[in-house]
Amino acid sequence: MKSKLKSTFQQFTKPIQFQKKSKVQNLVPGEVTYVGDNDHVSTEIDLLSYNADDCETSTNLSVSEIKALVDAEPESIHWISFTGLKDVNQLTELGDVFKIHPLVLEDIANTKQRPKLDEFKDYIFFTLKMIYHNNSLVKEHFALIVGDNYVISFQENRYDDVLKFLRERIFLKKGRIRDAGSDYLFYAIVDAIVDNYYNIAETIELQTEALEDIILNHTENTSPQDIQILKRQILSVRKSVAPTKELINRLHQTDHKLFKLKTKRFLNDLYDHILQVTENIDIYRDIVWGLMDMYMSSTSNNMNQVMKVLTIMSTIFIPLTFIVGVYGMNFTYMPELDLKSAYYIVWTIMIVIALVLVIYFKRKKWF
Amino acid sequence: MKSKLKSTFQQFTKPIQFQKKSKVQNLVPGEVTYVGDNDHVSTEIDLLSYNADDCETSTNLSVSEIKALVDAEPESIHWISFTGLKDVNQLTELGDVFKIHPLVLEDIANTKQRPKLDEFKDYIFFTLKMIYHNNSLVKEHFALIVGDNYVISFQENRYDDVLKFLRERIFLKKGRIRDAGSDYLFYAIVDAIVDNYYNIAETIELQTEALEDIILNHTENTSPQDIQILKRQILSVRKSVAPTKELINRLHQTDHKLFKLKTKRFLNDLYDHILQVTENIDIYRDIVWGLMDMYMSSTSNNMNQVMKVLTIMSTIFIPLTFIVGVYGMNFTYMPELDLKSAYYIVWTIMIVIALVLVIYFKRKKWF
Amino acid sequence: MKSKLKSTFQQFTKPIQFQKKSKVQNLVPGEVTYVGDNDHVSTEIDLLSYNADDCETSTNLSVSEIKALVDAEPESIHWISFTGLKDVNQLTELGDVFKIHPLVLEDIANTKQRPKLDEFKDYIFFTLKMIYHNNSLVKEHFALIVGDNYVISFQENRYDDVLKFLRERIFLKKGRIRDAGSDYLFYAIVDAIVDNYYNIAETIELQTEALEDIILNHTENTSPQDIQILKRQILSVRKSVAPTKELINRLHQTDHKLFKLKTKRFLNDLYDHILQVTENIDIYRDIVWGLMDMYMSSTSNNMNQVMKVLTIMSTIFIPLTFIVGVYGMNFTYMPELDLKSAYYIVWTIMIVIALVLVIYFKRKKWF
Amino acid sequence: MKSKLKSTFQQFTKPIQFQKKSKVQNLVPGEVTYVGDNDHVSTEIDLLSYNADDCETSTNLSVSEIKALVDAEPESIHWISFTGLKDVNQLTELGDVFKIHPLVLEDIANTKQRPKLDEFKDYIFFTLKMIYHNNSLVKEHFALIVGDNYVISFQENRYDDVLKFLRERIFLKKGRIRDAGSDYLFYAIVDAIVDNYYNIAETIELQTEALEDIILNHTENTSPQDIQILKRQILSVRKSVAPTKELINRLHQTDHKLFKLKTKRFLNDLYDHILQVTENIDIYRDIVWGLMDMYMSSTSNNMNQVMKVLTIMSTIFIPLTFIVGVYGMNFTYMPELDLKSAYYIVWTIMIVIALVLVIYFKRKKWF
Amino acid sequence: MKSKLKSTFQQFTKPIQFQKKSKVQNLVPGEVTYVGDNDHVSTEIDLLSYNADDCETSTNLSVSEIKALVDAEPESIHWISFTGLKDVNQLTELGDVFKIHPLVLEDIANTKQRPKLDEFKDYIFFTLKMIYHNNSLVKEHFALIVGDNYVISFQENRYDDVLKFLRERIFLKKGRIRDAGSDYLFYAIVDAIVDNYYNIAETIELQTEALEDIILNHTENTSPQDIQILKRQILSVRKSVAPTKELINRLHQTDHKLFKLKTKRFLNDLYDHILQVTENIDIYRDIVWGLMDMYMSSTSNNMNQVMKVLTIMSTIFIPLTFIVGVYGMNFTYMPELDLKSAYYIVWTIMIVIALVLVIYFKRKKWF
Repeated sequence: MKSKLKSTFQQFTKPIQFQKKSKVQNLVPGEVTYVGDNDHVSTEIDLLSYNADDCETSTNLSVSEIKALVDAEPESIHWISFTGLKDVNQLTELGDVFKIHPLVLEDIANTKQRPKLDEFKDYIFFTLKMIYHNNSLVKEHFALIVGDNYVISFQENRYDDVLKFLRERIFLKKGRIRDAGSDYLFYAIVDAIVDNYYNIAETIELQTEALEDIILNHTENTSPQDIQILKRQILSVRKSVAPTKELINRLHQTDHKLFKLKTKRFLNDLYDHILQVTENIDIYRDIVWGLMDMYMSSTSNNMNQVMKVLTIMSTIFIPLTFIVGVYGMNFTYMPELDLKSAYYIVWTIMIVIALVLVIYFKRKKWF
Repeated sequence: MKSKLKSTFQQFTKPIQFQKKSKVQNLVPGEVTYVGDNDHVSTEIDLLSYNADDCETSTNLSVSEIKALVDAEPESIHWISFTGLKDVNQLTELGDVFKIHPLVLEDIANTKQRPKLDEFKDYIFFTLKMIYHNNSLVKEHFALIVGDNYVISFQENRYDDVLKFLRERIFLKKGRIRDAGSDYLFYAIVDAIVDNYYNIAETIELQTEALEDIILNHTENTSPQDIQILKRQILSVRKSVAPTKELINRLHQTDHKLFKLKTKRFLNDLYDHILQVTENIDIYRDIVWGLMDMYMSSTSNNMNQVMKVLTIMSTIFIPLTFIVGVYGMNFTYMPELDLKSAYYIVWTIMIVIALVLVIYFKRKKWF
Repeated sequence: MKSKLKSTFQQFTKPIQFQKKSKVQNLVPGEVTYVGDNDHVSTEIDLLSYNADDCETSTNLSVSEIKALVDAEPESIHWISFTGLKDVNQLTELGDVFKIHPLVLEDIANTKQRPKLDEFKDYIFFTLKMIYHNNSLVKEHFALIVGDNYVISFQENRYDDVLKFLRERIFLKKGRIRDAGSDYLFYAIVDAIVDNYYNIAETIELQTEALEDIILNHTENTSPQDIQILKRQILSVRKSVAPTKELINRLHQTDHKLFKLKTKRFLNDLYDHILQVTENIDIYRDIVWGLMDMYMSSTSNNMNQVMKVLTIMSTIFIPLTFIVGVYGMNFTYMPELDLKSAYYIVWTIMIVIALVLVIYFKRKKWF
Repeated sequence: MKSKLKSTFQQFTKPIQFQKKSKVQNLVPGEVTYVGDNDHVSTEIDLLSYNADDCETSTNLSVSEIKALVDAEPESIHWISFTGLKDVNQLTELGDVFKIHPLVLEDIANTKQRPKLDEFKDYIFFTLKMIYHNNSLVKEHFALIVGDNYVISFQENRYDDVLKFLRERIFLKKGRIRDAGSDYLFYAIVDAIVDNYYNIAETIELQTEALEDIILNHTENTSPQDIQILKRQILSVRKSVAPTKELINRLHQTDHKLFKLKTKRFLNDLYDHILQVTENIDIYRDIVWGLMDMYMSSTSNNMNQVMKVLTIMSTIFIPLTFIVGVYGMNFTYMPELDLKSAYYIVWTIMIVIALVLVIYFKRKKWF
Repeated sequence: MKSKLKSTFQQFTKPIQFQKKSKVQNLVPGEVTYVGDNDHVSTEIDLLSYNADDCETSTNLSVSEIKALVDAEPESIHWISFTGLKDVNQLTELGDVFKIHPLVLEDIANTKQRPKLDEFKDYIFFTLKMIYHNNSLVKEHFALIVGDNYVISFQENRYDDVLKFLRERIFLKKGRIRDAGSDYLFYAIVDAIVDNYYNIAETIELQTEALEDIILNHTENTSPQDIQILKRQILSVRKSVAPTKELINRLHQTDHKLFKLKTKRFLNDLYDHILQVTENIDIYRDIVWGLMDMYMSSTSNNMNQVMKVLTIMSTIFIPLTFIVGVYGMNFTYMPELDLKSAYYIVWTIMIVIALVLVIYFKRKKWF
């Protein structure tokens, strides 16, 4: 049982991939520089175009091909996936073609950018973190631009578990997505990412409970480090989720022309989801913050056990050792020494003392 | 006394039925999926129709029968009880007949939904948690839809203690309910659930006081786990009650046409009730959060007692044992050994030392 | 000194009379039920009528007599004291005669009601807690209704210390009260109750300082329980005072026709008073919350003293005891044993060792 | 070094003069009662009149003389200093002559009044605390009334260090004060008091750093009491400064006719000053709140040192003492006893054991 | 590894240069007094003038020369660098020439001034702290005045790392700066300083992680002092960054005529940057605040190890020493003494007891 708990705990606590050491502070405002660690991911632009009747995909297109395809079918909805942010030139080209503000391009390439919502006349820019469990907990920079008939999603990695099901729904005409506009596609992508936060919150819940159980029942198998790792994970997830909550709140109150009235109710629902995720995380934060106290209390209880054994042993034998010491003295004149039954009397006295002490400790509930 | 306290405490601390592991993340927005654990509860729809003069009930109806009965008496108030959320088809059918938005149906079936208030043109949707003590603390998903002449309540279980008395009042024409509209029925149902929160708050109060008493007087009978369980219970109850408070606040400020002016004062009163419950819970939260400190302090006090006994015993006997050791040495030339009264002198010295130390410890208040 | 402090502390810390176990949850909204514990206090209605010239009192009247007396002198101000809330019938009768809303009557009888302010067209309802020291700390439910020429005060007990001085002022024409209206009487009553909060805050101050002193200087005379009791007292007082503060703030901003402009400045002053009380309580809350740390630190310091004595004794005698043990060995060939001065040499060596250790500990500041 | 730190610390930590036990609760609203402790300070009214050209002072005037002098030169600015609040009659007389509201007079005499700002049609009332170091930390009640051509300052004591420099500036025509109106004089007085808060904040800073140093390096020279005293000082100062900050904020936003536009920028600057003081105090509050943890940690580290010495001594000598005990046994048949080299062998074994243990402890970094 | 961590930690933890003891409290409002410590830095005024085509610098000018140069080219943008605040006369002269309010000059010279934004009709005043790592962490007072065609920057030291790159960009026509107005130059300077905050936040991150690692793995190499120093650093940085955040928020919402619409988006971006810095600092604050607990827990764990060794040694040898004591007694009649195998039997018994105890401790997981 114990080892199972321990492994349950360890399974999730590989430390987070922090994107530490920034390559360079971006010094010229509006300069597009990729600061992430995924240099091995080559840039690829894919297109998924659909309307109520048709749905087709094309992969690995150039920016000009994309533009041509989007312009060719103004009535369809186009989901442009830009994966791998290393190739800043393609990003800039895309920015030129779709008339995107340079500061937005900077924020797309800057993988350390915190969640952000920026409304422009013709498009809305939204960036948040995609959080998923891929061996360890990964926080991936994810950006979205929504225009009147297109959505461009920017992703650092080729990880697709979170959005796979959404693509299926589009192909299979499941739900209302094929009949709705680019604003609904935008909502659906954000919703898929936020729904995945639930899984993360559940992982935190499982870890917390496993750790709590270890601390209470097998304190010797854990250390403050485990608590600290969990604390950091929660802080890290919270850091991304909390500002996203604020932004979705702003989003569902916006009156930007891109958002149709009936999409508003879905954004409201989305806000409700992220509110629930945040509350769950906060409850587990409260619990984890209390675990250090519990750990110290458990440690101190174990210590007490050790001390009690020492005390009982010492306290029983200290007077006895004194007594035998007394009769080890070499005085010429010690009347007891020559008594025939003295040895047995001393043993009796010692056993009585030991018993009295044992009973005293029993009464005090020391063992 | 002590064992009674302990049992008082244990009686309430069976851990909460957490609805952990969600069956499936609901991936298509607006898709109605039941995620709860009560698969054994079959779906049943009952109707309670009343006006100032008459009052009748019919049980186990189909959705179309319900619709017919409601339409037949437009002047009466109809309370439709939908119990058991497993049968999603009946729920969808009901949604179609009463023209309920798909996202609302999704929230009704999603038993993990946090408290929520949604106003539509023709009806208001409100979901909260029914919390009661049925062996252990149970948090049950409860949803309400109020239209102009009907109220539909959705419940996961067939547990009826909380609302039984309300049904009686309708039958017996007690209070003003038979003369009032659907808005007052809605208020009365929510009021019954909120009034029951008082019982939960009182249970928390009793548990806290019992635990506090155990920690102070019988520390050895408790463990940090007891405190942690109580913490979690309070966090869990608070998680449901706090957002409900916000919603009732919004409710009593709404200007939806369904709510008549004279019902407003009752909603105001309801808000007052839930405010009081929240304050009580928060006070006990504060107290429970301080219990861990008290526990550690008590444990540490006990430890001190143990250490003092060890110290007193050791400190008294250590010099004595040294003295008897001295006269156990086998030197050929030790003048004291041959003195006739030496043995008695040594005993006298040892008793004096012991007395001096005992008096010293008495002065220091060590025992 | 110490015992004086202790008694100073105990004098105030008789635990608060919590009105625990509610008799019954009030299930029908608007039903008037007395839930308090003072069943022995019989209901009595008194009247104090005054204007600039006259002032008369009549005691133990019926509701209809009251009504007649109030209607007879419309120009006078009438203070109706309703003492003892047990007799719900008289309360309902009074409610009928003065046209008071049933929910207000419910709140008057419900002694567990939190502070509340409710404005109606013809009267204002205000309920707060009268807190006083009568052997132990008592929190008494107190309600006020102010109309154009009358004020009705509802009180659970016949305790009169808080308001006695106000009655005297009316009789003796002290201050401006006899020339002012019912709004000023209302203000004067609330002011008397709030002024008494100062005494409570001062008691908390005295207790905190006494306890702090005990913890620092006589830790053995206290226990975490004392701190916990004080914490609870502060929480309990704060629970009543904090919402009252909010309500008085609302009160002095109201534009209800009953409140004349020149009374507003007095309400502003009242708000200032309760703000000051709240701030004082909060400062002592902060201090008391830190006392547990101080207690643990004091306890741990005492423990260190104990441990140091043990360590010093052990560390000095352990090597000495070893040395005497060496010369207690019975080897046939031990050259030192036969040396004539060996015994004295061993004593010298032992005294040197002991002195070295004593100096070492002195240097380390262990005693 | 150490003793210097200690004295630096003690120099400032004489406990604050709390104005405890109020003489009497002021029961009649608007009744002017002096509640302070400075009964020995006789009341004295001084006048400092100036305009751009002249500047004269007269001391120890009667209220009517003051009034005459103020009315005689309506174009000058008059600073009336009312020192010593004991003589309530003179205060009331002044109130009558300058038409001051009775509640304001009550607040002037009530030295326990919290900071307060009250705007009337013809004058503004402002009360705050003058905090200074005069042997111990003193918080003195200070009130100001500013009219169109006069400022009245009310002070409990004849302490003048804080305002002395301002008086000099008026005499010496330093800065713009002689050309400005009563609003600027008002600003200058408040500014002098607030500037003095910087000194207090700096004292707190010095004390905190001295205490921190003592705790880290000479834990045995301090006690939790020192931390508690510092905590209380900070709480006490903060209690006066924080509400003053709010009031100055309100002051610089007021549109009272008395304040000229160009004085506004100075009030804004004043607000900036008090904001900075508050922030500094709050930072030191944070640090002091952490000192108790540091103290406990230091204490516990010292304890560990003690325990390690005990453990090392015990653990080394316990097996050795056992060995010498073995050869102290009196068995007739113990072959080793008669070996010639046995004694030396035993010594060798014992030294080896001791060395092994010493090396083991060295490895464990125990000393 | 360990020593590397330690040095990583120490490298950054040289205590902050606190600008303690103020030289003099500035008593006359609007009097310009330099209060900083950099008396050795002589005042120097440089000018960098540029427009889309040209760019020239002149160093060490007098105030009148500056004025002449600025007036000569009204179409260019002039960046006036005022370095070294010691020479208050030049500062006042500059203030006269550019018509700057005396209170602003006071704030420029007052190096202890907190971040502040003040809008005047013709110019905007902004002061913040430049924080950089120059051996130790330095917080330098930095002030900016922006007019229609000039920006004046005031700096205490000649440290230029933070702004060097910005100057290069102007020279090299990198980015849009040469085509933009004085508002963009103002933005670019503030942006350079805020971007440098990232480096500071990253340093804090590295220190925290190094310290965390030391505490967990090499507790004996650290002390509460290290945690306290880090706490103070974070508090000190936060004290400067947090108000700057507020001011930049106000700045990007201002409608001052100096700020062109297209500069607004850049200020918005700037606000986003400082928000992210603040969030990072706050997360590390949370972590550092938890380190003391971790340290105490680690210390207490080490203590437990020490105690366990003591307990094991004592508990094993205490009964054995008692046994050998028994047979060291000198009773004439002790039958065992004469048994031939008694000595070996006693040894066997002792070894069995020792083994039993060792197994018992193994079971208890004590070693």
